[in-house]
Amino acid sequence: MPNRYAYLGPAGTFTEAALRTLEPDAPAEALVPCSGVDAVFAEVRSAGVDGGVVPLENSVEGGVTATLAELINGEPLLVTAETAIPVAFTLFARPGTSLSDVKRVATHPHALAQCRGWMTRNLPDAEACALASTAAAAQAVAEPGSAYDAAIAAGIAGERYGLSPLAEGIADRSDAATRFVRITRPGPLPAPTGHDCTSLVAFPHDDRPGALMELLNQFAVRGVNLTRLESRPTGDGLGRYCFCIDADGHVSDPHVGEALMGLRRICADVRFLGSFPRSGSPAVTPLRGTTAPDFPAAERWLERIRSGEVA
Amino acid sequence: MPNRYAYLGPAGTFTEAALRTLEPDAPAEALVPCSGVDAVFAEVRSAGVDGGVVPLENSVEGGVTATLAELINGEPLLVTAETAIPVAFTLFARPGTSLSDVKRVATHPHALAQCRGWMTRNLPDAEACALASTAAAAQAVAEPGSAYDAAIAAGIAGERYGLSPLAEGIADRSDAATRFVRITRPGPLPAPTGHDCTSLVAFPHDDRPGALMELLNQFAVRGVNLTRLESRPTGDGLGRYCFCIDADGHVSDPHVGEALMGLRRICADVRFLGSFPRSGSPAVTPLRGTTAPDFPAAERWLERIRSGEVA
Amino acid sequence: MPNRYAYLGPAGTFTEAALRTLEPDAPAEALVPCSGVDAVFAEVRSAGVDGGVVPLENSVEGGVTATLAELINGEPLLVTAETAIPVAFTLFARPGTSLSDVKRVATHPHALAQCRGWMTRNLPDAEACALASTAAAAQAVAEPGSAYDAAIAAGIAGERYGLSPLAEGIADRSDAATRFVRITRPGPLPAPTGHDCTSLVAFPHDDRPGALMELLNQFAVRGVNLTRLESRPTGDGLGRYCFCIDADGHVSDPHVGEALMGLRRICADVRFLGSFPRSGSPAVTPLRGTTAPDFPAAERWLERIRSGEVA
Amino acid sequence: MPNRYAYLGPAGTFTEAALRTLEPDAPAEALVPCSGVDAVFAEVRSAGVDGGVVPLENSVEGGVTATLAELINGEPLLVTAETAIPVAFTLFARPGTSLSDVKRVATHPHALAQCRGWMTRNLPDAEACALASTAAAAQAVAEPGSAYDAAIAAGIAGERYGLSPLAEGIADRSDAATRFVRITRPGPLPAPTGHDCTSLVAFPHDDRPGALMELLNQFAVRGVNLTRLESRPTGDGLGRYCFCIDADGHVSDPHVGEALMGLRRICADVRFLGSFPRSGSPAVTPLRGTTAPDFPAAERWLERIRSGEVA
Repeated sequence: MPNRYAYLGPAGTFTEAALRTLEPDAPAEALVPCSGVDAVFAEVRSAGVDGGVVPLENSVEGGVTATLAELINGEPLLVTAETAIPVAFTLFARPGTSLSDVKRVATHPHALAQCRGWMTRNLPDAEACALASTAAAAQAVAEPGSAYDAAIAAGIAGERYGLSPLAEGIADRSDAATRFVRITRPGPLPAPTGHDCTSLVAFPHDDRPGALMELLNQFAVRGVNLTRLESRPTGDGLGRYCFCIDADGHVSDPHVGEALMGLRRICADVRFLGSFPRSGSPAVTPLRGTTAPDFPAAERWLERIRSGEVA
Repeated sequence: MPNRYAYLGPAGTFTEAALRTLEPDAPAEALVPCSGVDAVFAEVRSAGVDGGVVPLENSVEGGVTATLAELINGEPLLVTAETAIPVAFTLFARPGTSLSDVKRVATHPHALAQCRGWMTRNLPDAEACALASTAAAAQAVAEPGSAYDAAIAAGIAGERYGLSPLAEGIADRSDAATRFVRITRPGPLPAPTGHDCTSLVAFPHDDRPGALMELLNQFAVRGVNLTRLESRPTGDGLGRYCFCIDADGHVSDPHVGEALMGLRRICADVRFLGSFPRSGSPAVTPLRGTTAPDFPAAERWLERIRSGEVA
Repeated sequence: MPNRYAYLGPAGTFTEAALRTLEPDAPAEALVPCSGVDAVFAEVRSAGVDGGVVPLENSVEGGVTATLAELINGEPLLVTAETAIPVAFTLFARPGTSLSDVKRVATHPHALAQCRGWMTRNLPDAEACALASTAAAAQAVAEPGSAYDAAIAAGIAGERYGLSPLAEGIADRSDAATRFVRITRPGPLPAPTGHDCTSLVAFPHDDRPGALMELLNQFAVRGVNLTRLESRPTGDGLGRYCFCIDADGHVSDPHVGEALMGLRRICADVRFLGSFPRSGSPAVTPLRGTTAPDFPAAERWLERIRSGEVA
Repeated sequence: MPNRYAYLGPAGTFTEAALRTLEPDAPAEALVPCSGVDAVFAEVRSAGVDGGVVPLENSVEGGVTATLAELINGEPLLVTAETAIPVAFTLFARPGTSLSDVKRVATHPHALAQCRGWMTRNLPDAEACALASTAAAAQAVAEPGSAYDAAIAAGIAGERYGLSPLAEGIADRSDAATRFVRITRPGPLPAPTGHDCTSLVAFPHDDRPGALMELLNQFAVRGVNLTRLESRPTGDGLGRYCFCIDADGHVSDPHVGEALMGLRRICADVRFLGSFPRSGSPAVTPLRGTTAPDFPAAERWLERIRSGEVA
């Protein structure tokens, strides 16, 4: 029986596209749409599926709050893969609808935010209604007697629900992308590939000025490059934050392991989210002393001096 | 003629409550409700009003994306005041409605997120509809033939629109609060009070590993305590962030001025958002060498040695 | 046959006192006086003896240049023990000499420097002659027809050479002390005792501003406390320095090993001098996150997360 | 009447050469030789002369202890100029002496240290006698019935005292140099030249781990490059150090002033020694954000934002 995967549905979401990228060989019946990010997490936790795919962050809107809330506060799961999907939006309506007919537009709030300029210019008086996903919006528009006149959604969603495009490429920015992750129950980590990402959440002691700088220093001093640092409220009142961090490297790499131990020592808490292959390409040239060969060379030197050899 | 203020309306929002806290003497006709955060900014920029009040961040949901987008990317405005308002939610309906009648609930997405637990337990099958504000939701529910059965809103909103409470205190956390700011066109800054906040956005050079640590170091080395650090995507693709920073102190304070100059030198760009009186109380004890008297003492010492006196 | 030890002689030096403290059971015939620090190092290197004892630093004069030069630039040896000896000086002369007879005073330059105040007040016109050690000075004064009238030396030296004290306790400071080390050929390190010192020399890349700060950061970030940092010219022209460093802990301790690997990566060169039991007591309370139990706790946590356990 | 200058004499020392470099127009009668570094300082302090010249550090031996002790602990004076002199040594004797006749060699201990290799190879059995300066050694050898057979001294000293060279260029390294400084009583500082050095002594609180790193950070964060960091015992027992620091720039430069104020705040004490023109050339390229134009640009920006202009 093939592995089954939950995703933020319904069918036709960008998330489904991400899942198909990550699991190209999965048969259609192995893909389980869920009505919300929290439902995807619940399916994975209850072992109803083998894994789940959810959006993590968007290049315009930032982190996806529901996903971050589950990763930070929910029962712990592992992130085992990632992929980034370019985001392009279309305004879909039932066949026969014209733009001037559109009074109520259904979509997901993040999609709405990314099409705000187009909407202000072209549909200044339309009411925007927030649904759980862009695909749900397309689906809702397709229903007979729908309360909505149009949906902002991905191209795939319009096709699936038999809608007509009223306007394509309506996002304010054409280079927007969303990053998705696959989550699984705890178990063996993906093997290192030499091009990995380690993801975690750090909770600094909040009575210590400069705590965040110390935290970043744990990575810097080991030459571990950070590719994402996102602050989130802990929920314990204004002014208290935790930090979602993505770092280059695999937790089994000695320098990443060192950095994480250092972090663990100085923080109130650290939640490890996983190590997995990077989907993009590295952008940063390591500083002298932190290139890949520097680490095993220093380890061999340490072994020699510990044995009393002079070196 | 009294100063006029735009706010995120309609009447009855938490934002109106914040505005009344900040401007207790403003007559009702001086308060101008707007349909969205972007509309408040537009009113202020076009000089339609003297100032505006918008939500900035919430202790559960984090930063308010629309406000941050305007502050970061829009035509520059100054933040000149702040206040924090405890957030308590009530489920309101038209008189005569019972909980079991509720199929469609209108509210703002942030309010929904903060009542998610209660909703799952008590209204698992209800459809949640996102409106521009909780007050708009209350207003919509109050309309004859409304598409919604109930609204999650502030107490004040229910009263204003003649709704009955079905359940009070339904937020998952009782200590939630939202922080609001007053924005104005550029002009003289509020005078220092000895208990101020300086707010800014820093855009690091993104080709420099450790750039964020250097950035934080500019504050740490001058003993300037940070009370908020929020990363936001710059919008220029995944992996590129700017940082919204709140620091203790006023830009006219020597050590804050020093820190900002240092920041300006090492960053690709810095946007100054304002210095204004803090609404809360400081939590952090300064480290030795960074207490208030340490700074003028060091300045006097510098004057002496520059004059050739030995000291 | 007992182990034989070279020391900075002749008999009667503070160095002999240090050697007797470190090797209380060594018979007199196993102690080999040498005429200079370089001769002690030469004896050890040529295997003429099993070890050697030399002065390393003095609390008034600083580092002992000859010892540092050998440790930094000579054929590598290990430091395997240390001891600190309080320094008290006596002015000795041949019996029958009075203070007013003293025209030429023999001593070691460091001793002279530490008695400078007393000399200026009491023997302002006397010529000071620098010999290889205070004991050599006492010996020289004792010779018939000596060119010197008096010697500044340790109490033990005066007794040994039959001299009379003219003035005791003549050091300008009464709390002066000298630190001595035992050197041996490369071989197994002394076992960790839980109260050890690791000594090394770091040669930063000198084209990198802030190199010393990065170097110190390698220790700080692992909570390794430094007890000595002494700059020395590399000899390659003005403005080029290396740094002699003593750190708390044994190179076999994980956090000390980590710090040394980090140092090795970022420096042009690092010379390990040894790990050995501390003679004094620790003065510094470790910061939160760098106490002894923090390190194995973080290691166990890392093992768990590497195995895919959530933690 | 011309200014008068004390220097470490007698006539013929490297120090005299340094003084003539710094004051090329001073007539011979304005140059006052003193018998020791402490005597030079005493002459300056008592206003017997207008200034003094003393050696500060040597590229082989390191800091000159007597000079550092006066600068660190003595009644405060200002350093107002510096120069570096290449150090070349000659073995001089009375005419008619051959190398095999040399049993006792007079010189200064630093000179001896720098010729140690040559001495070991060529005069292994000679007794080395430490005098106050190499010139004093040459003078002493020139006296009839001298107790010494030869002197290690500067070329100029041999000529002045009528001695013959037995061996020239006997230093172990040919690139050795000594740095000399001119000291004066407190008064107006030398004007900035755009190529200056600021010299000071920092006394960290010694109960604070990482104090030295914080201290260096005060300079690094303002882009102030350090050209010398020399630890010295405070004299208050083993393990307690102060740090002699030379930095690029003049105390009247804003970024140097900032760094010094920062240092003053975090240290137990800071002694300012002076700002004066550099004698050598700068070696370090400033990092982005710390070049000369970056500082006034940031100041102008700060003025704008303080005035409420958006920038």
